[in-house]
Amino acid sequence: MPITEIVLVTVLILLAPFSIAGISLINTGMGRSRSAAHSLLTSLCIFAVAAGAYVICGFAWQGYIGAPAHVFVAAGRQWNWLARGPFFLRGIDFNDAPISLALCLQIFSVGLAALIPLGACLDRWKLSAACASTALFAGWTYPLFAHWVWGGGWLAQLGINADMGHGVIDAGGSGTIHAVGGLTALSVAWILGPRRGKYSLEGMPTAIPGHNAVLILFGCFLSLLGWLGLNSAGAILFTGAAPGRVALIAINTTLAAGAAILAAVVITGLRFGRPDVSISANGWIGGLVASSASCAFVSPIEAFVIGAIAGALVTYSVEWFELHFGIDDPGGAISVHALGGIWGLLAVAIFASFPASQVGIGAGRFGAVSTRDAGQALAQIVAIATLIGFVLPLTYGLNFALNRVWPQRVAIEGERQGLDLYEFGAGAYPDFVTHSEEFGQFR
Amino acid sequence: MPITEIVLVTVLILLAPFSIAGISLINTGMGRSRSAAHSLLTSLCIFAVAAGAYVICGFAWQGYIGAPAHVFVAAGRQWNWLARGPFFLRGIDFNDAPISLALCLQIFSVGLAALIPLGACLDRWKLSAACASTALFAGWTYPLFAHWVWGGGWLAQLGINADMGHGVIDAGGSGTIHAVGGLTALSVAWILGPRRGKYSLEGMPTAIPGHNAVLILFGCFLSLLGWLGLNSAGAILFTGAAPGRVALIAINTTLAAGAAILAAVVITGLRFGRPDVSISANGWIGGLVASSASCAFVSPIEAFVIGAIAGALVTYSVEWFELHFGIDDPGGAISVHALGGIWGLLAVAIFASFPASQVGIGAGRFGAVSTRDAGQALAQIVAIATLIGFVLPLTYGLNFALNRVWPQRVAIEGERQGLDLYEFGAGAYPDFVTHSEEFGQFR
Amino acid sequence: MPITEIVLVTVLILLAPFSIAGISLINTGMGRSRSAAHSLLTSLCIFAVAAGAYVICGFAWQGYIGAPAHVFVAAGRQWNWLARGPFFLRGIDFNDAPISLALCLQIFSVGLAALIPLGACLDRWKLSAACASTALFAGWTYPLFAHWVWGGGWLAQLGINADMGHGVIDAGGSGTIHAVGGLTALSVAWILGPRRGKYSLEGMPTAIPGHNAVLILFGCFLSLLGWLGLNSAGAILFTGAAPGRVALIAINTTLAAGAAILAAVVITGLRFGRPDVSISANGWIGGLVASSASCAFVSPIEAFVIGAIAGALVTYSVEWFELHFGIDDPGGAISVHALGGIWGLLAVAIFASFPASQVGIGAGRFGAVSTRDAGQALAQIVAIATLIGFVLPLTYGLNFALNRVWPQRVAIEGERQGLDLYEFGAGAYPDFVTHSEEFGQFR
Repeated sequence: MPITEIVLVTVLILLAPFSIAGISLINTGMGRSRSAAHSLLTSLCIFAVAAGAYVICGFAWQGYIGAPAHVFVAAGRQWNWLARGPFFLRGIDFNDAPISLALCLQIFSVGLAALIPLGACLDRWKLSAACASTALFAGWTYPLFAHWVWGGGWLAQLGINADMGHGVIDAGGSGTIHAVGGLTALSVAWILGPRRGKYSLEGMPTAIPGHNAVLILFGCFLSLLGWLGLNSAGAILFTGAAPGRVALIAINTTLAAGAAILAAVVITGLRFGRPDVSISANGWIGGLVASSASCAFVSPIEAFVIGAIAGALVTYSVEWFELHFGIDDPGGAISVHALGGIWGLLAVAIFASFPASQVGIGAGRFGAVSTRDAGQALAQIVAIATLIGFVLPLTYGLNFALNRVWPQRVAIEGERQGLDLYEFGAGAYPDFVTHSEEFGQFR
Repeated sequence: MPITEIVLVTVLILLAPFSIAGISLINTGMGRSRSAAHSLLTSLCIFAVAAGAYVICGFAWQGYIGAPAHVFVAAGRQWNWLARGPFFLRGIDFNDAPISLALCLQIFSVGLAALIPLGACLDRWKLSAACASTALFAGWTYPLFAHWVWGGGWLAQLGINADMGHGVIDAGGSGTIHAVGGLTALSVAWILGPRRGKYSLEGMPTAIPGHNAVLILFGCFLSLLGWLGLNSAGAILFTGAAPGRVALIAINTTLAAGAAILAAVVITGLRFGRPDVSISANGWIGGLVASSASCAFVSPIEAFVIGAIAGALVTYSVEWFELHFGIDDPGGAISVHALGGIWGLLAVAIFASFPASQVGIGAGRFGAVSTRDAGQALAQIVAIATLIGFVLPLTYGLNFALNRVWPQRVAIEGERQGLDLYEFGAGAYPDFVTHSEEFGQFR
Repeated sequence: MPITEIVLVTVLILLAPFSIAGISLINTGMGRSRSAAHSLLTSLCIFAVAAGAYVICGFAWQGYIGAPAHVFVAAGRQWNWLARGPFFLRGIDFNDAPISLALCLQIFSVGLAALIPLGACLDRWKLSAACASTALFAGWTYPLFAHWVWGGGWLAQLGINADMGHGVIDAGGSGTIHAVGGLTALSVAWILGPRRGKYSLEGMPTAIPGHNAVLILFGCFLSLLGWLGLNSAGAILFTGAAPGRVALIAINTTLAAGAAILAAVVITGLRFGRPDVSISANGWIGGLVASSASCAFVSPIEAFVIGAIAGALVTYSVEWFELHFGIDDPGGAISVHALGGIWGLLAVAIFASFPASQVGIGAGRFGAVSTRDAGQALAQIVAIATLIGFVLPLTYGLNFALNRVWPQRVAIEGERQGLDLYEFGAGAYPDFVTHSEEFGQFR
């Protein structure tokens, strides 16, 4: 890896944590004022536990292209399914740039992914349970799927082993970070059940507005900044994009977010008579999420289209989960990250073209010619099927088991008081007078 | 462009959006609590529309040095007045670093410039009208002037064509971003008229304090961070400053902001008996704005002086517009960006010295000797005259016409309810108890 | 200095101001709502004054390795005790990268250090006095100690002159920035005395909760981002760490913060029955502070241990100062920065190993072999002794003298009204209804 590329990727990685700050603020704003401190302190703890678990065993199992791995044989080919690195980072050579950079980026990526479930579990998830769930997520679920896509695992090998284009391509983590995080959000929200007061006795959802729109919308700005780093660092490290493409990646990321929020504003404006602030913000993040997988391999106009579709999807999906599935997702995490991420993976199949021969672990197999072939589409679909058919049951099962051992939901009294008072003994905004009408409408 | 320079400029550009986040927060804090969500969501939409319009046609008309352009002939010389690039970025080679980097920086710059009018139009500007006005701004007004200064247009050519120094120099966009944005703010605020309750029946202005000083002052920090990127990336890309000057640019930018806020604190303290928080924050931003044009070509002490003067100017100007022109500018956008920007252009004439021969499109025409000549001063004055004599009428006319087609001001009832409730059906801070005394004092 | 290294360090430095924004937000959140604007405007002014004073004389006295210096002779060796650079940066060659980069980083570092005392002096420190105290700090105290450690002064020379390892090693500024700032915080808080209402008539402290936990916890995220820049830029510039180590530094910094907050959450949870939000946030920052000195020279696991110990120390220390010393430190600045910084210096002695021969001003004296010797431990202890035995009395004396000339504490009436109303005539949150019960319990 040339030194200039190391310098570039290093700095891009250091921008990535802004996405963590941004998503944390959005989650907090989407929740109630009486659990605002809980949401943010839990975010910091989740980030800390995720980093710790990942360092202990996650990175060992995720690995990187070329690292030793557990292998199974099928159809006469060898497929990697789990890396065999050392625990506790023992023996990692931090002077070996691609490895140390990938590790550093992954610590921030796993932290971001681990925060996604919190958005769906606001106002009712115990701090201790969130930490335990995160340890399972960052120590096992995330590294497993990330190994398959980014670590030279079987999904990445679909290209060379099964002639499916370049294998699964996910530059910035639409699937690896967001769909995995979003499906975990779905699992935990499902297990926790809806907040008291969310559904009427007849089962109709009521709107519980987020307590601070400024936090939500400011979080959107911060998230964009983090994504500029995440997408470009991931594209270079995990799909071999040329460093000169960072400007294009930044343009694409920005346009996708912009198109998504405009789509959400227009659609909610048309459907409800007035634009909806929370859904519009969710649209923006959905656009970012969807832009990630293909960010280096589409044109700005294509990125705009990808973002607009993501914004529209989120708009409908938020209502759909709430109304038809009875899942209470205050932060919209499932729609934004699971659905947005899956759409991002699919968008690679539809829009991406690969200009250089270095893409993926089959680098050099194709010539310099652009390829937009059916094989690539198949690879992306296999990835989506794996997410829904394998990752979702896995993460549901892990959290279901955890819930047996250590119930994840706070006691009823905790929801009534607010998590801040119940778990920490103090509110987030002690000097401000707040409303508390909503306490009546229990279910 | 050497690869190390590409890496440096790429990353500097990615810091620029912090200025967008910062200015958005400041605007929001300067407005009323009952339009806080409106202000921030409008900011995100303005950014999205600006990026979209710029990609569709703005960049085609702005162009870059060396791109094909429409030309007129005067005084026996050819002058560029509009670039002739392709719409929708068709055919742009994203691997060609100076072009793709300039495009990327410009998407953030036009987004920042387009946000400036919002500061002057808080609490009364429709979301839809703001988006429409932004489309005109980012699609036409901004690219036109930016072509003239940064795209090799006639203002840049003043050096080689009319012997006015290096032609107009505006490294970080004092004129191109801020004066253009600030004059548009003046136009729209003029057309909208003041907020209900701003002026008494006798025409005396009342103070309507910004609803959240924390947002305002935190926005100042974020803006500094964005400016570090904006100023240095602009200086390298548009005036050929050496990459090694970034440290100097960062020091100058910081000192200008610091000097400006100290000036504003001292002056408001002396005049009113107590420092004024909003005006001091405006001073800080005014210092940043004024530092931009000359950031790479002055010493730290000169930057300090430029900033201090900017801070003082803003202090007096805010009151002056309010008192003598009857213009209600809640965010101080006109004083900060229009006046600060014009002062920044002028400061080049007074303080800048150009150490290298690569500056401007007349690169190499002068030797390596520093030049601080009368011709340069003339060029800067021509730029200022163009802003006041051409850009202001243009942007006033465009927004006047828009206002005929689509009235830009919200209905009276909207102002009474607050824009959040009126346009979105929900407030920004639903859990908090807020005052609403000010409703009586209508005009 | 190779151009790629210049590019890397330049950009790392530009991330450093996020720490300033983060610490400012934390301080503001830890204070009362009725002095929130005061806290943030004072932060901006402190930053401005610090930058100004540092440019006027601070940098001249701090200098850099190899600059001319005042020397004394002891034990047959020459020891530098003060640099002899030009005032007002006259004659600084901004194209000479190591010098201009060090200057730029130091302007941000001194700004950060100067903000630390504000955390301990919230709700009662006059704006004017804070500016005056900052001028003394940034013009004299900070540069003096920074010269000794980073500028080739006698503490750095302990290695070559007295055979104490590499001399004092403080890569990111645990001692130079934080301990110096934290001891100044102790001095000023001591001189000011506790807030009205903090201690009962019997001398028992009451809890005055910070007014906004969201600001505090969001500030933790921002601080991490700033520290990524601070630690890595400092490690490269001041201890000769290889640029390829930035990924390791980022990982270490993140893990230290994470370990510290987990330690604080667990310990406060065990001791008080419930985790404490403010102390946990202080733990996070304490972890960052402690990570700085050794960030490039420890393994991730060691960084985790350093952070966990820092988090535990802060937890006990906050209570200890309040209970046994009668010092009212609303932001926990003394525990976090003074104690955390001293622990960071000590951690170098315990954990650091130096892989390369370029470390410190005795570069090349040792071979490429790792050294973790008793001499290094001695050097670190000498630095700590100097901080406690010399810097603390110095900064106490300076602020004591200042207090005679210009009393630093606001009048009683000012505390009752809140600093916002008293010094600026307007509150930070005019639209929100706030509580004001705590006014009764005067002492």
